[in-house]
Amino acid sequence: MREEENGSRRRRICLIVAYDGTAYNGWQYQSNGVTIEETLNRALGELTGEKIAVIGASRTDAGVHARCNVAVFDTDARMPAGSFPYALNQRLPKDIRIRGAKEVDLSWHPRRCKSVKTYEYRILNDEFPDPTNRLYAYFTYRALDVEKMRQGAAYLVGEHDFKSFCSIHTQALTTVRTITKLEVDCQDRQIVIRVAGTGFLYHMVRILAGTLLEIGEGKYPPERMKEILDAKDRNAAGPTAPACGLTLTAYEFL
Amino acid sequence: MREEENGSRRRRICLIVAYDGTAYNGWQYQSNGVTIEETLNRALGELTGEKIAVIGASRTDAGVHARCNVAVFDTDARMPAGSFPYALNQRLPKDIRIRGAKEVDLSWHPRRCKSVKTYEYRILNDEFPDPTNRLYAYFTYRALDVEKMRQGAAYLVGEHDFKSFCSIHTQALTTVRTITKLEVDCQDRQIVIRVAGTGFLYHMVRILAGTLLEIGEGKYPPERMKEILDAKDRNAAGPTAPACGLTLTAYEFL
Repeated sequence: MREEENGSRRRRICLIVAYDGTAYNGWQYQSNGVTIEETLNRALGELTGEKIAVIGASRTDAGVHARCNVAVFDTDARMPAGSFPYALNQRLPKDIRIRGAKEVDLSWHPRRCKSVKTYEYRILNDEFPDPTNRLYAYFTYRALDVEKMRQGAAYLVGEHDFKSFCSIHTQALTTVRTITKLEVDCQDRQIVIRVAGTGFLYHMVRILAGTLLEIGEGKYPPERMKEILDAKDRNAAGPTAPACGLTLTAYEFL
Repeated sequence: MREEENGSRRRRICLIVAYDGTAYNGWQYQSNGVTIEETLNRALGELTGEKIAVIGASRTDAGVHARCNVAVFDTDARMPAGSFPYALNQRLPKDIRIRGAKEVDLSWHPRRCKSVKTYEYRILNDEFPDPTNRLYAYFTYRALDVEKMRQGAAYLVGEHDFKSFCSIHTQALTTVRTITKLEVDCQDRQIVIRVAGTGFLYHMVRILAGTLLEIGEGKYPPERMKEILDAKDRNAAGPTAPACGLTLTAYEFL
């Protein structure tokens, strides 16, 4: 009753979080290196005076960027949900920005809802690197055949066992996932692999990008992608492409 | 004769230089802060064993970026001109890259030839900043009317006395310059002011951008641009827009 008397009420706030991952050891709390999660928790603690622990939707790796990751936290603070972005952005470093906030049901958990995530993997394929792009795209001077990359990508669309595209350090119970869209765009010297799906395994997008890079370089033909899928063996796929090229670009809850 | 005997020969090499200006105190040597010029000189000194002083085509300000600045230097080194980019990029920090090199006449001076330079001034006009764009675009949440910016820009094309668009700290003998092209593009939330000309005064592009920003915000109508030009007074124009939004994107020698 006491809480109702002074007007406070437990609420769950959902944040849209954008970040340049260059300086961070990923989303999730680590013993070494600063993470996005702990930086958010600290700013929320300063703002509310409460001890706050956010729950992130996508626990991105060290060096990976996001335009729209999602995080929720519970608070007794009476601030309108729409004011959190402005108040938090005052307290956060410039490489993390809150782009939106709204109240959600106290039972709503961002990793327990159906969602479609979109990632972009950017590649600069030129003779020399572009310094103003070096933190947000993987650079390679090796000529890439975009049409072959598209042909290889087509084998991955739909529901498949992506065990070959999953780090051996996974804790996933099943390695079956669904890719709803997989495009390979090319503009000037920049290639963008855009992949959407209802869930991704650990390192899946970066292994997929590393495999498409090998197909683009002509190391093996696009048809090999089917054999790689069928092998259900991490060793069959290409390398894990560097983190800097990867950005979480869209998050849609169904 | 001695030099001919051992095969060495004085040559002038022209470099295409790209950089992320964020960490630098501009192009030109300064007593405080690291500059692009001194970083290039040090790398060239290490590579050739000679004491080298480059001559830059465009002495960009602190924080300004370039995709294609031009610099020349003289050397007795026998390395083929086309090998300099690879050898220098090994020795330069990742925020400076050499994108090309060729031999030019010993009398060729990049600031004494006719040239057309293109600059882009980037603006992110959105509710919240994008962390992955923060170093390469000026952010404003104030709604900008792109059509009005285009109307204001049109007054500046051609040969004019740009005294109102020149820092009072200039050493220029004349403030008459020619703008050959001035476009205002808009895609998603990003506005790009693209300006080409045969020469620019100190801070000219940034003052021009700052004035177009005020027109876009509706502080005064596009027609005011003509009065600002006619005033020949720095106080008549808008503020100098922040350096981070500016990139030298093309350099053409005529």
